[in-house]
Amino acid sequence: MSYTVENRARYVEELKAYLRIPSISTLSENKPDICRAAEFTAAQLRQAGMRNVELMDGEGNPLVYGEWLDAPGKPTLLFYGHYDVQPPDPLSEWVSPPFEPEIRGENIYARGAADDKGLTLILVKAVEALMATRGKLPVNVKFLIEGEEESGGEHISSYVASKPPRIKADAAVICDTEMFAPELPTLCIGLRGIVYGELTVKGAKQDLHSGVYGGAAPNPMMAVAEILTALKDRDGHILIPGFTDKVQPPAPAEKEAWARLPFDEQKYREEEMGASALTGEPEYTLFERLWARPTLEVHGIRGGFIGEGAKTVIPAQAVVKLSARLVADQEPDEAVKQIQKAVAAACPRGVTAEFKLLHGAAPSLINPDNRFIKAAADAMTEVFGKETVYVRSGGSIPITGLFDQHLGIPSVMMGFGLPDDNLHAPNEKLFLPNFYRGIDAVARYLDIVGEG
Amino acid sequence: MSYTVENRARYVEELKAYLRIPSISTLSENKPDICRAAEFTAAQLRQAGMRNVELMDGEGNPLVYGEWLDAPGKPTLLFYGHYDVQPPDPLSEWVSPPFEPEIRGENIYARGAADDKGLTLILVKAVEALMATRGKLPVNVKFLIEGEEESGGEHISSYVASKPPRIKADAAVICDTEMFAPELPTLCIGLRGIVYGELTVKGAKQDLHSGVYGGAAPNPMMAVAEILTALKDRDGHILIPGFTDKVQPPAPAEKEAWARLPFDEQKYREEEMGASALTGEPEYTLFERLWARPTLEVHGIRGGFIGEGAKTVIPAQAVVKLSARLVADQEPDEAVKQIQKAVAAACPRGVTAEFKLLHGAAPSLINPDNRFIKAAADAMTEVFGKETVYVRSGGSIPITGLFDQHLGIPSVMMGFGLPDDNLHAPNEKLFLPNFYRGIDAVARYLDIVGEG
Repeated sequence: MSYTVENRARYVEELKAYLRIPSISTLSENKPDICRAAEFTAAQLRQAGMRNVELMDGEGNPLVYGEWLDAPGKPTLLFYGHYDVQPPDPLSEWVSPPFEPEIRGENIYARGAADDKGLTLILVKAVEALMATRGKLPVNVKFLIEGEEESGGEHISSYVASKPPRIKADAAVICDTEMFAPELPTLCIGLRGIVYGELTVKGAKQDLHSGVYGGAAPNPMMAVAEILTALKDRDGHILIPGFTDKVQPPAPAEKEAWARLPFDEQKYREEEMGASALTGEPEYTLFERLWARPTLEVHGIRGGFIGEGAKTVIPAQAVVKLSARLVADQEPDEAVKQIQKAVAAACPRGVTAEFKLLHGAAPSLINPDNRFIKAAADAMTEVFGKETVYVRSGGSIPITGLFDQHLGIPSVMMGFGLPDDNLHAPNEKLFLPNFYRGIDAVARYLDIVGEG
Repeated sequence: MSYTVENRARYVEELKAYLRIPSISTLSENKPDICRAAEFTAAQLRQAGMRNVELMDGEGNPLVYGEWLDAPGKPTLLFYGHYDVQPPDPLSEWVSPPFEPEIRGENIYARGAADDKGLTLILVKAVEALMATRGKLPVNVKFLIEGEEESGGEHISSYVASKPPRIKADAAVICDTEMFAPELPTLCIGLRGIVYGELTVKGAKQDLHSGVYGGAAPNPMMAVAEILTALKDRDGHILIPGFTDKVQPPAPAEKEAWARLPFDEQKYREEEMGASALTGEPEYTLFERLWARPTLEVHGIRGGFIGEGAKTVIPAQAVVKLSARLVADQEPDEAVKQIQKAVAAACPRGVTAEFKLLHGAAPSLINPDNRFIKAAADAMTEVFGKETVYVRSGGSIPITGLFDQHLGIPSVMMGFGLPDDNLHAPNEKLFLPNFYRGIDAVARYLDIVGEG
């Protein structure tokens, strides 16, 4: 579209202005920046021709809403993004300051460039281009941009759970994922869910001297080891009864497509991961293990003595940070109950053990035959000049589960980030050609959906 | 002895002066107090009539030496104690300030009251009483009082390892243990040794996102659980090949004596330990498990995320603080090699695992038929009016192993502390009647050894 080509310089200037706002949602001192970023987002929506634009206040950071609903009989799309960002630490590792966007080569570097201000702006600019050139859109559009994605997203969760008529739609469009490889248009159609909690194991009433009591006192750290090995074996099989019963294997065609993805396993292991071997259930392929199998991971164990030198203490307590990734059709509530039951069964003598949920999210799996998905694949193929691939992600985007559960709509995850964009890390960047092509792909997507 | 009865008030005043010096060896800001406490100890030895009293400087805190060697043909005893103390934290839990000694009832409360200034002074005052009343001692005596017992004891270790002729003796007398129960004269004839180290397990080169990499990345925390359960089973049996081969079971008579000790197992478990069950190898009695069997204990595990809330990280590394208590005739060097071999054998795919020793101490077991032990039992029985019992301790006093290994002499551990003296804890105390009886018992001991 010639309009979007002509306006690239302005898009970049506006993106820079957006990126200069340090809207870090986990730090309370940045609350004024959160508000500035919300106002900036709203102004962008107004400039794009959206109506009824407003900040919706609630228990957390404001949700930014805007709509254009003058396409009667046409589908309604709900555009999701977020204007908050991760903290930039460690600052010393940034080549240019995180909130002073800098273009080096074809990339723009700043906190939030890819996650998610740059991608959010792709949605806005696509709509703006259509409105500017035609005065109307081929479909109805609603924007719901949140400011707590990096800090729990409680405001949007309770808002979506209240099923407000205002955000009724036929499909959601989420611009917060990445391409499988550079130049490879990618649609993510599956996300793992998660249950994340704390396993608390308690022994004696206080820390004990390991010389005086060793041989008689229960050791909660050792009990943790016994419980964990009862939950998962050395080959990565989860031993929790019933845990994998509802797991849906990927269809043969999907597995075959995964096998065709451009992927260098050795490079992945050696350069990206830096480990001596890949692990996990040996009877499944790597992508199955990452995208279509549940996991059980320990994130850390608190308790006892971990300082320099030696302290001979039998800890009174150990608290394990523990999570499981879930895949369709596992349910978070049921998974928690299964874990709790297995923990109780594996608990050794002399200690108590209890698993408590901190947060959960359902897995989501979208049927690729869905017309909104097919339209996205076609649009991306057209703009990028390459066949769009379907992948899943091992991570969790809780909002997709909420849209599915409460609004009954599928999420179309059009990814324009790249695997090396350094999300949540120093030197976050966005590849500018993808920014431009993303705008064209989304605009084309609206046309295809409108034609449908 | 009437002299010791008449001088009790003075003994207590001098003990108070000793206790007012905050000679905390682990804190460098207390270095001047360490020196004051060393000087105070030396002054006490001079006042007791010891000769050639001096501070021996070395790499750490000074050793205090003094001697009286005018009993030709009589045995030479090496008296050991320490003038340094543990830090007093948490300060808020002390009823009276830790370095302002206060007598409440029959106890004197202060940091160091029982560990070890009070017990060290028992040795000094026993010698002083004999010198004051007779002008001579029935045996030859050497004092070696250190100032690093609570912080590693490196100075005395290297000094003893150098086998200096100056500390040549027939037996060591250590006043740093406790009575099994109030009013029950107790000799400790066995101590467990220890090897304390760090087990480092490494996976990927950096922490990884558990959603993106879970199912393919090795998890060092989980690997730790697998290794630990391979080293020790749920019943407390150590599975390390060869580890228990050299363990000497206690003689039937010793086991029978343990069974006769006044002991309330339920009170021990519920009130002292506060656990729902005692654990450990079920085929051994409690005292066997505590005193005559090795242990393997986890003290803490460093790595990953242990803060509030949720962070979905697969840790790159886990460091386990791990120790084993050893019993005769296990050897620390051999135990370390056995642990290292077992760790290597149990190490799962995708991680490396290495156990590194931080410090070790040999177990020690003294033959109770030794004349120096028998004399101590007789002296204590006489003064306390009750048969002396022989016990062991599950803890480790490295100096006994060093005296055995380098000087070839047994250690007589006359204990005058009580189980509730709050060593290393707030409100440390010394039961004053034991302080007085201890002085008499040591004086009587010198006489019996001299008669021998």
